[in-house]
Amino acid sequence: MAGQDRETGLKLDIKFDEHGLVPAIVQDAATGQVLMMAWMNEAALKQTLEIRKATFYSRSRNKMWIKGESSGHVMEVLEARVDCDQDVVLLRCKAHGPACHAGYQTCFYRATEASGPMKFVEEKVFDPAKVYGH
Amino acid sequence: MAGQDRETGLKLDIKFDEHGLVPAIVQDAATGQVLMMAWMNEAALKQTLEIRKATFYSRSRNKMWIKGESSGHVMEVLEARVDCDQDVVLLRCKAHGPACHAGYQTCFYRATEASGPMKFVEEKVFDPAKVYGH
Repeated sequence: MAGQDRETGLKLDIKFDEHGLVPAIVQDAATGQVLMMAWMNEAALKQTLEIRKATFYSRSRNKMWIKGESSGHVMEVLEARVDCDQDVVLLRCKAHGPACHAGYQTCFYRATEASGPMKFVEEKVFDPAKVYGH
Repeated sequence: MAGQDRETGLKLDIKFDEHGLVPAIVQDAATGQVLMMAWMNEAALKQTLEIRKATFYSRSRNKMWIKGESSGHVMEVLEARVDCDQDVVLLRCKAHGPACHAGYQTCFYRATEASGPMKFVEEKVFDPAKVYGH
């Protein structure tokens, strides 16, 4: 069965969505921190595995981009994993700088409860205006 | 600006996709291991935050499901975070058992390179047939 092969087999057979994309989670391999999630098309996944720098596909700009291209905050891929049904990618990375363009180590810098305002749960580690310009 | 509020503000304002869904990453808060990713609609997110058990929306079955409903492998939510543009949720959980129905602690049990077969990088921790039946 194709479904079983995809789950139990060792052939890379990513299930891209109707837009030809797959979500890719970036995790700091040293700290375990989940840094960000972005989308890849087949070419971005191929490039990521070849050059070992996390490469994504921007849905708004309709183009591939290497994370850290402008900031220098490259995510060096130490290990790439796929989930059971091969519709999610996990990149375990060496983070060459913070992940989030908003100035935090991780994009997940706010926590939410069932009600009430969210809370900031991370410290800013850089000034985006200095890295990206105004 | 609405875009800025979503990034810098403290109001929960999830950007659901065209299907009304948002991806939710489950991380073991104790070990840092990324366990799985699944999808939530607004009702599943609300329920997750209220009952503190990871609840998702199944796209194939068109219904909400509580992770661990049948296996007992519930993901108890210790902290829920959102990313900068509020289109991804991260649940930091106490895992009451393995996450993957295939018998592994994490759904990410295979690693891939640019070419060649993938490799199993996790040990099986339970027999799915015994937990879920045949």
